[in-house]
Amino acid sequence: MNIAVLGTGMVGQALAGRLVELGHTVTVGTRDVPATLARTGPDGMGNPPYPVWAQSHPQVRLATFAEAAAAAQLIVNATTGTASLAALTAAGAQNLAGRILLDIANPLDFSRGFPPTLFVKDTDSLAEQIQREFPELKVVKALNTMNAHLMVDPRRLAGGQHSVFVSGDDADAKKTVTGLLESFGHTDVIDLGDITTARGTEMLLPVWLRLMGALNTPDFNFKIVR
Amino acid sequence: MNIAVLGTGMVGQALAGRLVELGHTVTVGTRDVPATLARTGPDGMGNPPYPVWAQSHPQVRLATFAEAAAAAQLIVNATTGTASLAALTAAGAQNLAGRILLDIANPLDFSRGFPPTLFVKDTDSLAEQIQREFPELKVVKALNTMNAHLMVDPRRLAGGQHSVFVSGDDADAKKTVTGLLESFGHTDVIDLGDITTARGTEMLLPVWLRLMGALNTPDFNFKIVR
Repeated sequence: MNIAVLGTGMVGQALAGRLVELGHTVTVGTRDVPATLARTGPDGMGNPPYPVWAQSHPQVRLATFAEAAAAAQLIVNATTGTASLAALTAAGAQNLAGRILLDIANPLDFSRGFPPTLFVKDTDSLAEQIQREFPELKVVKALNTMNAHLMVDPRRLAGGQHSVFVSGDDADAKKTVTGLLESFGHTDVIDLGDITTARGTEMLLPVWLRLMGALNTPDFNFKIVR
Repeated sequence: MNIAVLGTGMVGQALAGRLVELGHTVTVGTRDVPATLARTGPDGMGNPPYPVWAQSHPQVRLATFAEAAAAAQLIVNATTGTASLAALTAAGAQNLAGRILLDIANPLDFSRGFPPTLFVKDTDSLAEQIQREFPELKVVKALNTMNAHLMVDPRRLAGGQHSVFVSGDDADAKKTVTGLLESFGHTDVIDLGDITTARGTEMLLPVWLRLMGALNTPDFNFKIVR
């Protein structure tokens, strides 16, 4: 598939790297290509800058949000939650129309320190904000409930015996995303229902963040035992 | 232990029944004893009324919130979230002082229909509201992330191979509650930290409710795979 990954941080790198490995054609989208290529220091989380990662992934093209989206059948939203709507606006509604959006972003608000709060929740969600803003985009929320390494390689923990959720209004789009998740190694993909069910998975972040503190590692995941 | 269970609904019945079975002395607390004993119809969830349950549990005494709390070392808050502060106020601050409160209530707001929203979240929690209102009470949030049958008998699902969380400011109170949970059959009790971490577990309810819809059963639980 021709896939655009919007976002050059740890999540974008993990997704782009894995998708290329699986044989997809991948373009990473960014706001400002020269600025991204000029980065030399680690990001706020201590991850190496995009140019360092790009050196070991020569098959991945870097382009503007709009160029990346225009060529893609499926778009991955791997931007920070606070920047997601602006990134998609920069991509352009005409370049999003009819595409599937795998939305991984979480509406985290770090303005009051750590742990972050959520800037939208309970009666609305970031996924719904995106769906409302771009009605011709087929938004599927998934993967936002685990760390980036587990997103793309779930077998590295307990042989992949844990769960991932999908939420979205378009059944075919959910089927495509589910297939992609299974190609990553996910074995328990739970379809929660329409896009409003993303409220549930976005609201998992507060307990996820506290679990990371209590367990002293981000290497864990939720399994729905039934 | 001498234990008060505040609340006569399904959760209160499940807790009281299991605690008596384990040899504890249990008093169920209610707002209005004659009114509770006069109930003949099922509750809003279709569960039998308290008097029917009480017939098969003659060892469990029914008393006012205040009488039940006064005699107890540990108090279980099994009231509806919207009624919890009023029930504890009726119990009386002097009857709560120094006691451990195992708080199971969730801040569910059904006023806008199903699924319910949360009337407190993200920057505060019901557990914290209770702790602030009754500073001498040792509040421990736990068990609010699963159905009542699993709370008291986790082995009925996957041999008990799933997780339960505790949040609270008092280490000894958390130790007592952890012991109680283990006596129910819980094997993976995760201490998330202080009482503010209850924000995380109370915010699990939105995904729990959507999972119940998607799986068409309340018989599931979260396991933290790590």
